[in-house]
Amino acid sequence: MNTADLGLPVDVPSTALFTDQYELTMLQAALKAGTAERRSVFEVFTRRLPEGRRYGVVAGTGRVLDAVENFRFDAGVLGFLREREIVDETTLDWLAGYRFTGDVLGYPEGEVYFPGSPIMRVEGSFAECVLLETVILSILNHDSAIAAAASRMSSAAGTRPLIEMGARRTHELSAVAAARAAYVGGFATTSDLAAGFRYGIPTVGTSAHAFTLLHDTERDAFRAQVDALGRGTTLLVDTYDVAEAVRTAVEVAGPELGAVRIDSGDLLLVAHRVRQQLDELGATDTKIVVTSDLDEYAIASLAAAPVDAYGVGTQLVTGSGHPTASMVYKLVARAESDDPRAPLVPVAKKSSGGKTSIGGRKWAARRLDEDGVAEAEVVGTGPVPAELAGRQLQVELIRGGEVLAREPLDVVRDRHIAVRAGLPLSATQLSRGEPVLPTEYVQVPSGN
Amino acid sequence: MNTADLGLPVDVPSTALFTDQYELTMLQAALKAGTAERRSVFEVFTRRLPEGRRYGVVAGTGRVLDAVENFRFDAGVLGFLREREIVDETTLDWLAGYRFTGDVLGYPEGEVYFPGSPIMRVEGSFAECVLLETVILSILNHDSAIAAAASRMSSAAGTRPLIEMGARRTHELSAVAAARAAYVGGFATTSDLAAGFRYGIPTVGTSAHAFTLLHDTERDAFRAQVDALGRGTTLLVDTYDVAEAVRTAVEVAGPELGAVRIDSGDLLLVAHRVRQQLDELGATDTKIVVTSDLDEYAIASLAAAPVDAYGVGTQLVTGSGHPTASMVYKLVARAESDDPRAPLVPVAKKSSGGKTSIGGRKWAARRLDEDGVAEAEVVGTGPVPAELAGRQLQVELIRGGEVLAREPLDVVRDRHIAVRAGLPLSATQLSRGEPVLPTEYVQVPSGN
Repeated sequence: MNTADLGLPVDVPSTALFTDQYELTMLQAALKAGTAERRSVFEVFTRRLPEGRRYGVVAGTGRVLDAVENFRFDAGVLGFLREREIVDETTLDWLAGYRFTGDVLGYPEGEVYFPGSPIMRVEGSFAECVLLETVILSILNHDSAIAAAASRMSSAAGTRPLIEMGARRTHELSAVAAARAAYVGGFATTSDLAAGFRYGIPTVGTSAHAFTLLHDTERDAFRAQVDALGRGTTLLVDTYDVAEAVRTAVEVAGPELGAVRIDSGDLLLVAHRVRQQLDELGATDTKIVVTSDLDEYAIASLAAAPVDAYGVGTQLVTGSGHPTASMVYKLVARAESDDPRAPLVPVAKKSSGGKTSIGGRKWAARRLDEDGVAEAEVVGTGPVPAELAGRQLQVELIRGGEVLAREPLDVVRDRHIAVRAGLPLSATQLSRGEPVLPTEYVQVPSGN
Repeated sequence: MNTADLGLPVDVPSTALFTDQYELTMLQAALKAGTAERRSVFEVFTRRLPEGRRYGVVAGTGRVLDAVENFRFDAGVLGFLREREIVDETTLDWLAGYRFTGDVLGYPEGEVYFPGSPIMRVEGSFAECVLLETVILSILNHDSAIAAAASRMSSAAGTRPLIEMGARRTHELSAVAAARAAYVGGFATTSDLAAGFRYGIPTVGTSAHAFTLLHDTERDAFRAQVDALGRGTTLLVDTYDVAEAVRTAVEVAGPELGAVRIDSGDLLLVAHRVRQQLDELGATDTKIVVTSDLDEYAIASLAAAPVDAYGVGTQLVTGSGHPTASMVYKLVARAESDDPRAPLVPVAKKSSGGKTSIGGRKWAARRLDEDGVAEAEVVGTGPVPAELAGRQLQVELIRGGEVLAREPLDVVRDRHIAVRAGLPLSATQLSRGEPVLPTEYVQVPSGN
C-alpha cells in the first residue's frame, strides 16, 4: 500500500512498524521456544520526573487507543519484513493474524502522575503485548512531555488564554500531537490547522511581518487586513516602530480594533506603553497579544502586565526543557510456566545501575488529607486496602482487544484542570522542587 | 478523505494543513488588496546556532521536496476551511487550484550551515510562497536539530558504528524522520522498522530485558534466542549478574557469539571487565554493544574502552539538548509594485528586539584557505565575486514547481561526512565554542 497518492508526506501503512526491530526478533525466539503464549503483564511508568518538576501529566492515551486498534500487519508490511529477512516465515504467519486481544488499563488521560505511578498496564500473551512497547512509549513520552509543559504555562497564565503556535519548531506531525497535548494541559487554541482538522481544537491566526513587508506602507498592510478580516482582527505592530504602528492601527480600524500583537522587544515594557497608548486613543477594548519565545517563567513575569493573551511556540513543543518523558514499558509479571492455567509470578530486572524495577501487577490510588487535598500516590501489589478502594486511579481502556471508551478532549482537559486543583498548592510553583506527592509502596500479602 | 481505513494513526489528507492559520488569512487579505501576486523571495536562515555548537547540519531537504509536491487543497481540506470559516469563498476558490509553481534553491542536504546562511530560498508569488512557511520550517527545524546531534555523536564515535534507537522517546513519526536525520549525520543503522520501510535505512535489534524475564532462567532465554536467531545474535547480559550472564552466553552460543549488549551500570568499567572475560572464554571476536542514555560526551568518554558499537536513543531524538533549530522563513524581497514586470526591492523588519534581518536575495559561498580548509561562510546580495564563483553553496531544488532532483540518502550522508572533514579541526571539538566559521556579509552594488 502506498499512501503517496493521498498527498501524505509519510508512507507508513499501519502503526505496526512504529516498532523497534527487537520486538519482532523476541517474538520469533519466543514462538520457537514455546514461551510466546505465556500470559504477561507489562507496565508503563517512570522512575523519575524531569529535574525540578513537581508533577507529570498523562497525555496521549486517546492516541494510544487508536494506535493499538490500527496495529495490523498487512501485505505491504509483511513483504517488507520478509524481504529484509527480519523474521522467519513462522513469525510472519503469526503476524499476519495479529490483533491485540488483551486488556489495557491505566490512568485516565489528563491525570497527573509521579515516579512509580503505573500509568498504563498491558496484559495478554507475551507475544501480543511485547509488540506494543515502542508505539505506546512514543505516544505517551511525547504527548505527556508537552502536556506537562502546557500545564505549567496554563497555571502561570491564570485566566488569560494561551495560543499554541509551535508547529514550525517541531516535526509536522509531532506538531499536531503537541497541539492536542497543549489543549489537554490547558491551552485555549492553536495556530496549527491540521490540529483543528484532526482534533477539532479551535484555531486562530491573522498575519506575520511578511504581510506588512509585502505592502508599500504599514498603513496599506493594515488596511488590507482590516478590509479582509474586519475590525476585530489582530494587527501585528512591531515590524517598524511600535508607537507609530499602534497609532496607524487605530486610525485604520478605529477603536473597535480587536487586538494588537507584539512579537519582539521587552514585552513587559512595550505592553505597558501600548496599553497606555491604546487607552489614550480610545481603543480601551483592544486587546494585547504577546508572542516571543515565551515559556512559563516569561508568562509568569508578565502577570502584572496589561496582556490579554499569550502565544507560545518553541518552548511548548519542546516541553520547556524536557522534550520527552522517561516512561518505560516493563514486564512485571508472567505465567509461571507454559501451562495456560499457570498463575502469574512477579518478575523484575535485578542488575545494578539504577534501572531496577518492582515486580508484580500494581494498583494505584491517591490518598487525600482531611481537607480533601492529595497527600500521597500509593502504589501496591496485592489487594487494595479498604480505605483506598474509592480512590483508585486506573480505569479500563481496552478489554479483550475492544476499546471501551473514547473521550472528547474537553473532558480530558477539564479532568486535568480539576485534578491539578486537587494537588497541594506547591504543585503549581514554577521553582524547581521535589514531586509534590511522595510515592508510597505498599505490599499486602495476597493471602490477607 | 479519511485515512483511518489505512490504519494510520493520523488523519491529515495532505501536507496543506501543516500550516499556521495566519498564512491563509494573509493570503485572503492579499488577494483582496491585489498584492497577492507580487513576486516575492522568502529565505530560510537562522540567527544563531544552539549555544556552544560549532556548526549546523542541513537535513530534511528531501522531505521538504515531498511536502511541497503534496501541498494541495482537496475537497476534505476545503470543506474544513469553509465550515470553520477560516477564509472566504474567493480564497477557497484560489486554494482549490493551488500548486506551487515557483523556484526553490538551497544548501544541499547534508551541508553544514552557520548563522545567516541562506539555507533555502523560495521564490514565486507572495500567495504561493507564504503558504509554505510552516511545513518547510517544521521539517528543516526538526530534522536539522537531530542531524546536528547525530553528527557530533558520529564524530565522537570515530569508526565505531552508531545505532539509532530513540523511537520510544519521541512522537512515532518524528522517530521516522529522526532515524533518517541520524543517518544523514553519520549513524549506521536504526532500530525503527518504519524508518527501514520508508527510507531503506538498515535496521537492527535483538532482545530486551523482558525476554530474559519471560523465561525461567537466563540460560533458557539465551538458548531460545540463539536457537531462533543464530550464534551471531546479540545477547543482553545485564538483567541479573553481568559476569554470570557472559559466562552463560558463551556456554550457550559458543565463542562464535556475535555480541553482548550492556544497558546499565558504569559502562567504562563493565565494558573492560566483559572484554577481559570474553577473551578469557575464547570469545575474542564477540563484540560489545553499549546502550544506556548515551550522548556525544559519553561516547567520547568510551573512546578508549573496548566497545564495538553504540546504541543511542533519547539524546539523539531530542537533539542532545537542542531539540529544534531556530530557522525562520522571512520575506527578503518583493516586487516594487503590482505591475508584473516590477523589479524586486529588498525588505526587512526594522523593529528593535534582536529580530532584525537583512533584506535582499542572497547568495552564499564558502571561502577556503590556502590548504583547502574552509575559513569563512560568505553571504552576499548582488553579483557573486569572481573568486567565490566556484564555491557557491546553493543548488536548484525546484524550478517552476518541478522537483529537479531527489538524492539517495547515502549520497547525502557521504556529502555530510566530506563537508565536515573540510571544516577546521575545531569543528568537531565537543566543548562549547563559537561557530567554527565566521559569517561575512558582502554587498556588491548591483551596478558593479
